[in-house]
Amino acid sequence: MKKTQSIPITSLQRLPVYLNYLKAGGGDGYVSSGTIARALGMGEVLVRKDLAHTSATGKTRVGYRRGELIEAIENCLGCRTRRTAVIFGAGGLGRALLSYGGFANYGIEIVAAFDSDPAKAGGSVAGKPVYLPAEAERVIGESGARLAVICVPASAAQAAADMLVRCGIAAILNFAAVILKVPADVSVRNIDVAANLAIASSGIKEE
Amino acid sequence: MKKTQSIPITSLQRLPVYLNYLKAGGGDGYVSSGTIARALGMGEVLVRKDLAHTSATGKTRVGYRRGELIEAIENCLGCRTRRTAVIFGAGGLGRALLSYGGFANYGIEIVAAFDSDPAKAGGSVAGKPVYLPAEAERVIGESGARLAVICVPASAAQAAADMLVRCGIAAILNFAAVILKVPADVSVRNIDVAANLAIASSGIKEE
Repeated sequence: MKKTQSIPITSLQRLPVYLNYLKAGGGDGYVSSGTIARALGMGEVLVRKDLAHTSATGKTRVGYRRGELIEAIENCLGCRTRRTAVIFGAGGLGRALLSYGGFANYGIEIVAAFDSDPAKAGGSVAGKPVYLPAEAERVIGESGARLAVICVPASAAQAAADMLVRCGIAAILNFAAVILKVPADVSVRNIDVAANLAIASSGIKEE
Repeated sequence: MKKTQSIPITSLQRLPVYLNYLKAGGGDGYVSSGTIARALGMGEVLVRKDLAHTSATGKTRVGYRRGELIEAIENCLGCRTRRTAVIFGAGGLGRALLSYGGFANYGIEIVAAFDSDPAKAGGSVAGKPVYLPAEAERVIGESGARLAVICVPASAAQAAADMLVRCGIAAILNFAAVILKVPADVSVRNIDVAANLAIASSGIKEE
Protein backbone atom coordinates (compact mmCIF):
# COMPACT_ATOMS: atom_id res chain seq x y z
CA MET A 1 0.00 0.00 0.00
CA LYS A 2 1.43 3.33 -1.04
CA LYS A 3 1.48 6.13 1.48
CA THR A 4 -1.51 8.47 1.28
CA GLN A 5 0.77 11.44 1.87
CA SER A 6 2.31 11.00 -1.60
CA ILE A 7 -1.00 11.58 -3.39
CA PRO A 8 -1.71 15.08 -4.72
CA ILE A 9 -4.65 16.60 -2.85
CA THR A 10 -6.61 17.06 -6.08
CA SER A 11 -6.38 13.31 -6.79
CA LEU A 12 -7.23 12.49 -3.19
CA GLN A 13 -10.37 14.60 -3.48
CA ARG A 14 -11.55 12.59 -6.47
CA LEU A 15 -11.03 9.16 -4.85
CA PRO A 16 -14.35 9.31 -2.93
CA VAL A 17 -16.11 10.05 -6.23
CA TYR A 18 -14.66 6.88 -7.80
CA LEU A 19 -15.42 4.96 -4.63
CA ASN A 20 -19.08 5.99 -4.61
CA TYR A 21 -19.38 5.10 -8.29
CA LEU A 22 -17.71 1.69 -7.85
CA LYS A 23 -19.77 0.81 -4.78
CA ALA A 24 -23.01 1.80 -6.51
CA GLY A 25 -22.13 -0.44 -9.47
CA GLY A 26 -22.05 -3.76 -7.64
CA GLY A 27 -20.62 -7.01 -9.00
CA ASP A 28 -16.99 -8.07 -8.99
CA GLY A 29 -16.08 -8.07 -12.67
CA TYR A 30 -13.54 -5.80 -14.31
CA VAL A 31 -14.01 -2.08 -14.73
CA SER A 32 -11.80 0.06 -16.97
CA SER A 33 -10.64 3.64 -16.45
CA GLY A 34 -12.51 4.46 -19.68
CA THR A 35 -15.78 3.15 -18.28
CA ILE A 36 -15.30 5.13 -15.07
CA ALA A 37 -14.35 8.27 -16.99
CA ARG A 38 -17.42 8.09 -19.25
CA ALA A 39 -19.79 7.39 -16.36
CA LEU A 40 -18.49 10.36 -14.38
CA GLY A 41 -17.98 12.74 -17.31
CA MET A 42 -14.23 12.96 -16.68
CA GLY A 43 -11.12 12.54 -18.83
CA GLU A 44 -9.79 8.98 -19.02
CA VAL A 45 -6.15 10.02 -18.61
CA LEU A 46 -7.04 11.87 -15.41
CA VAL A 47 -8.89 8.85 -14.01
CA ARG A 48 -5.97 6.55 -14.83
CA LYS A 49 -3.47 8.94 -13.21
CA ASP A 50 -5.60 9.25 -10.07
CA LEU A 51 -5.98 5.48 -9.72
CA ALA A 52 -2.25 5.00 -10.27
CA HIS A 53 -1.77 6.65 -6.86
CA THR A 54 -3.55 3.71 -5.25
CA SER A 55 -2.12 0.21 -5.02
CA ALA A 56 -4.58 -1.06 -7.65
CA THR A 57 -3.04 -2.55 -10.77
CA GLY A 58 -5.16 -2.58 -13.91
CA LYS A 59 -4.81 -5.15 -16.71
CA THR A 60 -4.41 -3.92 -20.26
CA ARG A 61 -7.74 -3.80 -22.11
CA VAL A 62 -9.85 -5.21 -19.23
CA GLY A 63 -9.07 -2.73 -16.46
CA TYR A 64 -9.28 -3.20 -12.71
CA ARG A 65 -11.02 -5.88 -10.69
CA ARG A 66 -13.83 -3.87 -9.10
CA GLY A 67 -13.38 -5.38 -5.62
CA GLU A 68 -9.62 -4.83 -5.62
CA LEU A 69 -9.98 -1.26 -6.82
CA ILE A 70 -12.51 -0.49 -4.09
CA GLU A 71 -10.13 -1.94 -1.50
CA ALA A 72 -7.15 0.02 -2.87
CA ILE A 73 -9.08 3.31 -2.79
CA GLU A 74 -10.39 2.58 0.70
CA ASN A 75 -6.84 1.92 1.88
CA CYS A 76 -5.73 5.27 0.46
CA LEU A 77 -8.54 7.08 2.22
CA GLY A 78 -7.88 5.20 5.45
CA CYS A 79 -11.40 3.72 5.40
CA ARG A 80 -10.14 0.37 6.64
CA THR A 81 -8.62 1.85 9.78
CA ARG A 82 -11.24 2.51 12.44
CA ARG A 83 -11.00 6.12 13.59
CA THR A 84 -13.03 8.09 16.07
CA ALA A 85 -14.12 11.70 15.76
CA VAL A 86 -15.82 14.32 17.89
CA ILE A 87 -18.02 17.25 16.92
CA PHE A 88 -17.54 20.68 18.44
CA GLY A 89 -20.81 22.61 18.42
CA ALA A 90 -24.17 20.88 18.80
CA GLY A 91 -26.32 23.47 17.01
CA GLY A 92 -28.28 22.64 13.87
CA LEU A 93 -25.32 21.50 11.80
CA GLY A 94 -23.60 19.64 14.64
CA ARG A 95 -26.79 17.77 15.47
CA ALA A 96 -27.34 16.92 11.80
CA LEU A 97 -23.83 15.45 11.61
CA LEU A 98 -24.36 13.46 14.83
CA SER A 99 -27.31 11.80 13.09
CA TYR A 100 -25.52 11.34 9.75
CA GLY A 101 -24.63 7.75 8.86
CA GLY A 102 -22.20 8.53 6.02
CA PHE A 103 -19.04 8.63 8.17
CA ALA A 104 -19.15 4.84 8.66
CA ASN A 105 -18.39 4.40 4.93
CA TYR A 106 -14.95 5.83 5.66
CA GLY A 107 -14.36 3.87 8.86
CA ILE A 108 -15.06 6.94 10.99
CA GLU A 109 -17.20 6.80 14.12
CA ILE A 110 -18.51 10.00 15.74
CA VAL A 111 -18.34 9.31 19.48
CA ALA A 112 -19.34 12.57 21.16
CA ALA A 113 -20.10 16.24 20.75
CA PHE A 114 -19.28 19.34 22.79
CA ASP A 115 -21.33 22.48 23.26
CA SER A 116 -20.88 25.40 25.64
CA ASP A 117 -24.65 25.73 26.00
CA PRO A 118 -25.55 23.92 29.26
CA ALA A 119 -29.02 23.28 27.81
CA LYS A 120 -27.45 21.11 25.09
CA ALA A 121 -24.66 19.50 27.12
CA GLY A 122 -25.73 16.58 29.26
CA GLY A 123 -28.11 15.26 26.64
CA SER A 124 -27.49 13.13 23.59
CA VAL A 125 -28.27 13.21 19.87
CA ALA A 126 -28.70 9.98 17.92
CA GLY A 127 -27.28 8.15 20.92
CA LYS A 128 -24.10 10.28 21.00
CA PRO A 129 -23.49 12.17 24.25
CA VAL A 130 -23.09 15.96 24.26
CA TYR A 131 -20.65 17.35 26.84
CA LEU A 132 -19.53 20.78 28.02
CA PRO A 133 -16.14 21.87 26.57
CA ALA A 134 -14.63 21.51 30.05
CA GLU A 135 -14.91 17.74 29.60
CA ALA A 136 -13.21 17.71 26.20
CA GLU A 137 -9.77 16.70 27.46
CA ARG A 138 -11.10 13.70 29.38
CA VAL A 139 -13.58 12.56 26.71
CA ILE A 140 -11.16 12.96 23.79
CA GLY A 141 -8.38 11.31 25.78
CA GLU A 142 -10.50 8.32 26.75
CA SER A 143 -11.95 7.86 23.25
CA GLY A 144 -8.61 8.24 21.51
CA ALA A 145 -10.28 10.52 18.95
CA ARG A 146 -7.85 12.24 16.58
CA LEU A 147 -10.50 13.82 14.31
CA ALA A 148 -12.87 16.69 15.00
CA VAL A 149 -15.52 18.63 13.13
CA ILE A 150 -15.97 22.29 14.06
CA CYS A 151 -19.60 23.42 13.78
CA VAL A 152 -19.54 26.55 15.93
CA PRO A 153 -20.06 30.12 14.65
CA ALA A 154 -17.03 31.82 13.07
CA SER A 155 -16.41 33.93 16.18
CA ALA A 156 -15.92 30.82 18.34
CA ALA A 157 -14.05 28.61 15.86
CA GLN A 158 -10.43 29.56 16.66
CA ALA A 159 -10.95 29.00 20.40
CA ALA A 160 -12.54 25.63 19.60
CA ALA A 161 -9.60 24.68 17.39
CA ASP A 162 -7.08 25.70 20.07
CA MET A 163 -8.84 23.54 22.65
CA LEU A 164 -9.15 20.57 20.31
CA VAL A 165 -5.46 20.70 19.42
CA ARG A 166 -4.55 20.83 23.12
CA CYS A 167 -6.65 17.69 23.59
CA GLY A 168 -4.69 15.80 20.92
CA ILE A 169 -6.87 16.29 17.84
CA ALA A 170 -4.70 15.95 14.71
CA ALA A 171 -7.20 16.60 11.90
CA ILE A 172 -10.05 19.11 11.76
CA LEU A 173 -12.92 19.57 9.37
CA ASN A 174 -13.96 23.21 9.78
CA PHE A 175 -17.38 24.53 8.77
CA ALA A 176 -16.79 28.04 10.17
CA ALA A 177 -15.92 30.72 7.61
CA VAL A 178 -12.55 31.57 9.14
CA ILE A 179 -8.97 30.52 8.52
CA LEU A 180 -7.89 28.53 11.58
CA LYS A 181 -4.38 28.92 12.91
CA VAL A 182 -3.11 25.51 14.00
CA PRO A 183 0.32 23.89 14.49
CA ALA A 184 1.95 22.59 11.30
CA ASP A 185 1.32 18.96 12.24
CA VAL A 186 -2.45 19.47 12.46
CA SER A 187 -4.41 18.91 9.25
CA VAL A 188 -7.36 21.23 8.50
CA ARG A 189 -9.97 21.09 5.76
CA ASN A 190 -12.52 23.86 5.37
CA ILE A 191 -16.07 23.61 4.10
CA ASP A 192 -17.71 26.99 3.63
CA VAL A 193 -21.25 26.00 2.62
CA ALA A 194 -22.38 29.51 1.64
CA ALA A 195 -19.22 30.11 -0.42
CA ASN A 196 -19.79 26.82 -2.23
CA LEU A 197 -23.34 27.81 -3.14
CA ALA A 198 -22.05 31.19 -4.35
CA ILE A 199 -19.42 29.47 -6.50
CA ALA A 200 -22.03 27.08 -7.90
CA SER A 201 -24.23 30.03 -8.78
CA SER A 202 -21.36 31.87 -10.45
CA GLY A 203 -21.39 28.99 -12.95
CA ILE A 204 -24.94 29.79 -14.09
CA LYS A 205 -24.56 30.12 -17.81
CA GLU A 206 -27.36 32.35 -19.11
CA GLU A 207 -29.01 35.61 -17.91
CA MET B 1 -15.99 43.90 -14.19
CA LYS B 2 -14.47 40.80 -15.71
CA LYS B 3 -16.72 37.83 -16.32
CA THR B 4 -16.70 35.26 -13.54
CA GLN B 5 -16.67 32.45 -16.08
CA SER B 6 -13.11 33.35 -17.10
CA ILE B 7 -11.71 32.61 -13.62
CA PRO B 8 -10.18 29.16 -13.03
CA ILE B 9 -12.27 27.22 -10.54
CA THR B 10 -9.27 26.84 -8.20
CA SER B 11 -8.91 30.64 -8.01
CA LEU B 12 -12.65 31.07 -7.59
CA GLN B 13 -12.56 28.69 -4.63
CA ARG B 14 -9.95 30.82 -2.88
CA LEU B 15 -11.82 34.12 -3.32
CA PRO B 16 -14.12 33.49 -0.33
CA VAL B 17 -11.02 32.88 1.81
CA TYR B 18 -9.60 36.28 0.87
CA LEU B 19 -13.01 37.85 1.33
CA ASN B 20 -13.41 36.47 4.86
CA TYR B 21 -9.90 37.63 5.75
CA LEU B 22 -10.45 41.14 4.34
CA LYS B 23 -13.84 41.54 6.01
CA ALA B 24 -12.45 40.39 9.37
CA GLY B 25 -9.64 42.96 9.10
CA GLY B 26 -11.78 46.10 9.07
CA GLY B 27 -10.54 49.56 8.15
CA ASP B 28 -10.18 50.96 4.65
CA GLY B 29 -6.44 51.38 4.22
CA TYR B 30 -4.28 49.49 1.75
CA VAL B 31 -3.57 45.80 1.95
CA SER B 32 -0.87 44.10 -0.11
CA SER B 33 -0.87 40.61 -1.63
CA GLY B 34 2.15 39.88 0.58
CA THR B 35 0.22 40.74 3.74
CA ILE B 36 -2.69 38.55 2.65
CA ALA B 37 -0.37 35.70 1.71
CA ARG B 38 1.45 35.74 5.06
CA ALA B 39 -1.77 35.97 7.07
CA LEU B 40 -3.28 32.99 5.25
CA GLY B 41 -0.09 30.93 4.93
CA MET B 42 -0.21 31.03 1.13
CA GLY B 43 2.25 31.95 -1.61
CA GLU B 44 2.27 35.62 -2.58
CA VAL B 45 2.44 34.92 -6.32
CA LEU B 46 -0.65 32.73 -6.06
CA VAL B 47 -2.55 35.44 -4.16
CA ARG B 48 -1.60 38.06 -6.73
CA LYS B 49 -2.64 35.80 -9.62
CA ASP B 50 -5.98 35.03 -7.98
CA LEU B 51 -6.73 38.69 -7.31
CA ALA B 52 -5.75 39.59 -10.89
CA HIS B 53 -8.89 37.71 -11.98
CA THR B 54 -11.00 40.32 -10.19
CA SER B 55 -11.38 43.91 -11.33
CA ALA B 56 -9.23 45.15 -8.43
CA THR B 57 -6.10 47.03 -9.39
CA GLY B 58 -3.29 47.11 -6.86
CA LYS B 59 -0.75 49.93 -6.61
CA THR B 60 2.95 49.08 -6.62
CA ARG B 61 4.38 48.77 -3.09
CA VAL B 62 1.12 49.70 -1.26
CA GLY B 63 -1.27 47.10 -2.64
CA TYR B 64 -5.04 47.23 -2.91
CA ARG B 65 -7.54 49.54 -1.24
CA ARG B 66 -9.26 47.15 1.14
CA GLY B 67 -12.79 48.37 0.35
CA GLU B 68 -12.25 48.20 -3.40
CA LEU B 69 -10.76 44.73 -3.19
CA ILE B 70 -13.71 43.47 -1.14
CA GLU B 71 -16.10 44.93 -3.71
CA ALA B 72 -14.17 43.40 -6.62
CA ILE B 73 -14.17 39.94 -5.02
CA GLU B 74 -17.85 40.24 -4.15
CA ASN B 75 -18.61 41.15 -7.76
CA CYS B 76 -16.74 38.06 -8.95
CA LEU B 77 -18.67 35.84 -6.58
CA GLY B 78 -21.95 37.49 -7.54
CA CYS B 79 -22.49 38.62 -3.94
CA ARG B 80 -23.87 41.95 -5.05
CA THR B 81 -26.62 40.38 -7.14
CA ARG B 82 -29.53 39.24 -4.95
CA ARG B 83 -30.28 35.57 -5.67
CA THR B 84 -32.82 33.24 -4.17
CA ALA B 85 -32.31 29.58 -3.36
CA VAL B 86 -34.38 26.64 -2.19
CA ILE B 87 -33.43 23.60 -0.12
CA PHE B 88 -34.55 20.12 -1.10
CA GLY B 89 -34.77 17.88 1.96
CA ALA B 90 -35.74 19.25 5.39
CA GLY B 91 -34.01 16.63 7.54
CA GLY B 92 -31.25 17.52 9.99
CA LEU B 93 -28.92 19.12 7.43
CA GLY B 94 -31.67 20.87 5.50
CA ARG B 95 -33.09 22.34 8.70
CA ALA B 96 -29.63 23.47 9.82
CA LEU B 97 -29.12 25.27 6.51
CA LEU B 98 -32.55 26.93 6.75
CA SER B 99 -31.38 28.45 10.04
CA TYR B 100 -27.90 29.35 8.77
CA GLY B 101 -27.25 33.07 8.30
CA GLY B 102 -24.07 32.77 6.22
CA PHE B 103 -25.76 32.79 2.82
CA ALA B 104 -26.63 36.48 3.17
CA ASN B 105 -22.90 37.32 2.97
CA TYR B 106 -23.02 36.16 -0.65
CA GLY B 107 -26.30 37.90 -1.50
CA ILE B 108 -28.19 34.59 -1.37
CA GLU B 109 -31.56 34.28 0.32
CA ILE B 110 -33.03 30.85 1.12
CA VAL B 111 -36.74 31.23 0.49
CA ALA B 112 -38.23 27.77 0.98
CA ALA B 113 -37.56 24.07 1.47
CA PHE B 114 -39.19 20.92 0.13
CA ASP B 115 -39.62 17.57 1.81
CA SER B 116 -41.64 14.53 0.80
CA ASP B 117 -42.46 13.81 4.45
CA PRO B 118 -45.97 15.23 5.04
CA ALA B 119 -45.05 15.65 8.71
CA LYS B 120 -42.35 18.18 7.72
CA ALA B 121 -44.15 19.88 4.83
CA GLY B 122 -46.69 22.50 5.83
CA GLY B 123 -44.53 23.79 8.66
CA SER B 124 -41.65 26.21 8.65
CA VAL B 125 -38.04 26.37 9.92
CA ALA B 126 -36.51 29.72 10.88
CA GLY B 127 -39.47 31.41 9.21
CA LYS B 128 -38.90 29.60 5.87
CA PRO B 129 -41.87 27.50 4.68
CA VAL B 130 -41.45 23.79 3.97
CA TYR B 131 -43.55 22.42 1.08
CA LEU B 132 -44.24 19.04 -0.47
CA PRO B 133 -42.26 18.40 -3.70
CA ALA B 134 -45.54 18.60 -5.64
CA GLU B 135 -45.49 22.34 -4.97
CA ALA B 136 -41.91 22.83 -6.19
CA GLU B 137 -42.80 24.03 -9.69
CA ARG B 138 -45.16 26.72 -8.38
CA VAL B 139 -42.95 27.85 -5.47
CA ILE B 140 -39.72 27.94 -7.50
CA GLY B 141 -41.49 29.66 -10.38
CA GLU B 142 -43.01 32.34 -8.15
CA SER B 143 -39.78 32.95 -6.21
CA GLY B 144 -37.60 33.05 -9.31
CA ALA B 145 -35.07 30.84 -7.49
CA ARG B 146 -32.24 29.57 -9.70
CA LEU B 147 -30.20 27.94 -6.91
CA ALA B 148 -30.92 24.80 -4.90
CA VAL B 149 -29.23 22.79 -2.17
CA ILE B 150 -29.87 19.03 -2.19
CA CYS B 151 -29.96 17.59 1.34
CA VAL B 152 -31.78 14.30 0.73
CA PRO B 153 -30.24 10.83 1.12
CA ALA B 154 -28.13 9.56 -1.79
CA SER B 155 -30.92 7.28 -3.00
CA ALA B 156 -33.29 10.23 -3.53
CA ALA B 157 -30.80 12.81 -4.84
CA GLN B 158 -31.04 12.15 -8.60
CA ALA B 159 -34.84 12.34 -8.57
CA ALA B 160 -34.58 15.59 -6.60
CA ALA B 161 -32.10 17.01 -9.12
CA ASP B 162 -34.33 15.99 -12.06
CA MET B 163 -37.31 17.74 -10.50
CA LEU B 164 -35.31 20.88 -9.62
CA VAL B 165 -33.93 21.16 -13.16
CA ARG B 166 -37.46 20.80 -14.57
CA CYS B 167 -38.50 23.68 -12.31
CA GLY B 168 -35.79 25.96 -13.73
CA ILE B 169 -32.99 25.54 -11.19
CA ALA B 170 -29.64 26.32 -12.86
CA ALA B 171 -27.13 25.69 -10.06
CA ILE B 172 -27.13 22.93 -7.45
CA LEU B 173 -25.10 22.41 -4.30
CA ASN B 174 -25.30 18.66 -3.65
CA PHE B 175 -24.60 17.10 -0.24
CA ALA B 176 -25.58 13.58 -1.31
CA ALA B 177 -22.69 11.21 -2.03
CA VAL B 178 -23.69 10.56 -5.64
CA ILE B 179 -22.70 12.01 -9.00
CA LEU B 180 -25.78 13.82 -10.32
CA LYS B 181 -26.58 13.66 -14.02
CA VAL B 182 -27.84 17.08 -15.13
CA PRO B 183 -28.03 18.97 -18.45
CA ALA B 184 -24.79 20.67 -19.53
CA ASP B 185 -26.13 24.13 -18.72
CA VAL B 186 -26.79 23.26 -15.06
CA SER B 187 -23.93 23.88 -12.64
CA VAL B 188 -23.35 21.36 -9.82
CA ARG B 189 -21.00 21.48 -6.84
CA ASN B 190 -20.69 18.52 -4.50
CA ILE B 191 -19.92 18.53 -0.79
CA ASP B 192 -19.35 15.06 0.61
CA VAL B 193 -18.92 15.79 4.32
CA ALA B 194 -17.74 12.29 5.28
CA ALA B 195 -15.26 12.17 2.40
CA ASN B 196 -13.87 15.53 3.49
CA LEU B 197 -13.33 14.28 7.02
CA ALA B 198 -11.65 11.16 5.63
CA ILE B 199 -9.34 13.30 3.48
CA ALA B 200 -8.53 15.54 6.46
CA SER B 201 -7.67 12.47 8.50
CA SER B 202 -5.47 11.06 5.75
CA GLY B 203 -3.27 14.09 6.37
CA ILE B 204 -2.55 13.06 9.97
CA LYS B 205 1.22 13.06 10.11
CA GLU B 206 2.34 10.75 12.91
CA GLU B 207 1.21 7.26 14.08
